[in-house]
Amino acid sequence: MKRMLLTISYDGTAYHGWQVQPNGITVQQTLQDALEKLLGERVSVTGCSRTDAGVHAREFACHIDCNDCFPESAFLKGLNSLLPNDISVIDCCEKTTDFHARYNSKGKRYIYSMYYGVPNPFDSRYKLHLEKKPNIVLMNDFCKGIIGTHDFAPFSSSKRTVEDTVRTVYDCCVKSNGNYIDFEITGNGFLYNMVRIIAGTALSVGYGRLSPDCYLNIFKSGNRSECGETLPSHALFLDKVYY
Amino acid sequence: MKRMLLTISYDGTAYHGWQVQPNGITVQQTLQDALEKLLGERVSVTGCSRTDAGVHAREFACHIDCNDCFPESAFLKGLNSLLPNDISVIDCCEKTTDFHARYNSKGKRYIYSMYYGVPNPFDSRYKLHLEKKPNIVLMNDFCKGIIGTHDFAPFSSSKRTVEDTVRTVYDCCVKSNGNYIDFEITGNGFLYNMVRIIAGTALSVGYGRLSPDCYLNIFKSGNRSECGETLPSHALFLDKVYY
Repeated sequence: MKRMLLTISYDGTAYHGWQVQPNGITVQQTLQDALEKLLGERVSVTGCSRTDAGVHAREFACHIDCNDCFPESAFLKGLNSLLPNDISVIDCCEKTTDFHARYNSKGKRYIYSMYYGVPNPFDSRYKLHLEKKPNIVLMNDFCKGIIGTHDFAPFSSSKRTVEDTVRTVYDCCVKSNGNYIDFEITGNGFLYNMVRIIAGTALSVGYGRLSPDCYLNIFKSGNRSECGETLPSHALFLDKVYY
Repeated sequence: MKRMLLTISYDGTAYHGWQVQPNGITVQQTLQDALEKLLGERVSVTGCSRTDAGVHAREFACHIDCNDCFPESAFLKGLNSLLPNDISVIDCCEKTTDFHARYNSKGKRYIYSMYYGVPNPFDSRYKLHLEKKPNIVLMNDFCKGIIGTHDFAPFSSSKRTVEDTVRTVYDCCVKSNGNYIDFEITGNGFLYNMVRIIAGTALSVGYGRLSPDCYLNIFKSGNRSECGETLPSHALFLDKVYY
């Protein structure tokens, strides 16, 4: 029995998120189906986290246990030939059997991509189109206040299922390049909708609808309604998982 | 009555090409529907050319006649708000009434995009994935032979409807950058499937299946079967229309 870490990349547009569910096709299910065809046995895939419907991943991590004796390059090529074009396995390597894709993860980086100006179909598929340029300096002032260990309950959906809502954000910033704006956040874990709500609050700050130090009141009151909106999923990327 | 030149950009994945047809949604129809909503009258849109199902455009050109007195910026914004995300109007300007999007065009540039290496979902949507790197030098040797005025009948689908199959190619080359390879071709006009067949022949040359001077025999014999395959549509972009 070998434990393998797979790094996968996917365009989440067509999927109901990562996790297997009864009412829609998910990335996990599609990957398990391809693995079953390749290995001739049903293997369970354990992901580093869930991603919501429509969210993309550049480097999602997951582990499987299998009996195969493929060389890694043949495994990669065989699996990719069985996957649809919107999911690719970009790396695989053997790990010790105590490795766990979720529990061993030290953190994750998400990127929320935006652009402004004339709409462009090739950008609009993966980025949020903004009517006008937000103030990047104000957005970064707000982002600095997010860094650290906080109770992020107000920055998450009430649909969350976890009890402990304290998380540590290692880095949070906004980078702009021409008409493109990336909101980047790295932390040890993220609550349901947390990235999209923090990014939405940063954007409200950038448009002057909220103050750059609004995080002070939000962390104090714990009130979701003081934050900005939950931005749409199509512009969110799980960029990297750290081990 | 004003004649307006519209420059539009579209992701052709979901469309049965540019031209209105009975059995599928096209870009032209979608644009005409949006214009009807904006202007309150049915206007006919005349395109610079047809594009096949699945082909994209960065700068497609078309003209309309309308009675509106919108400022151009309001026209652009209003029309984009009525179009789906995979079609955008990126520019509009008034022309004299004798201007014609097709007849006044001096030429067009198409780009066929490819990449090799580990498959990537974000590249695979708009580029042809190659298993291995083709020989770029050989491909460019072939491309040089395509430049000029020739009867391009062998490099076109037998489904073409035109009589005159002589066209002039002003430039044809292959550019590579890391794992990315772009086949670029500029000419005064293109026959049905011509770009995808020339690009497919260039790729066969790059893999050593055809000789770099195969164009000599092809132009002489006029035989489609001596060319390479018609490459798939999802990686073809109409890049620019010249006036």
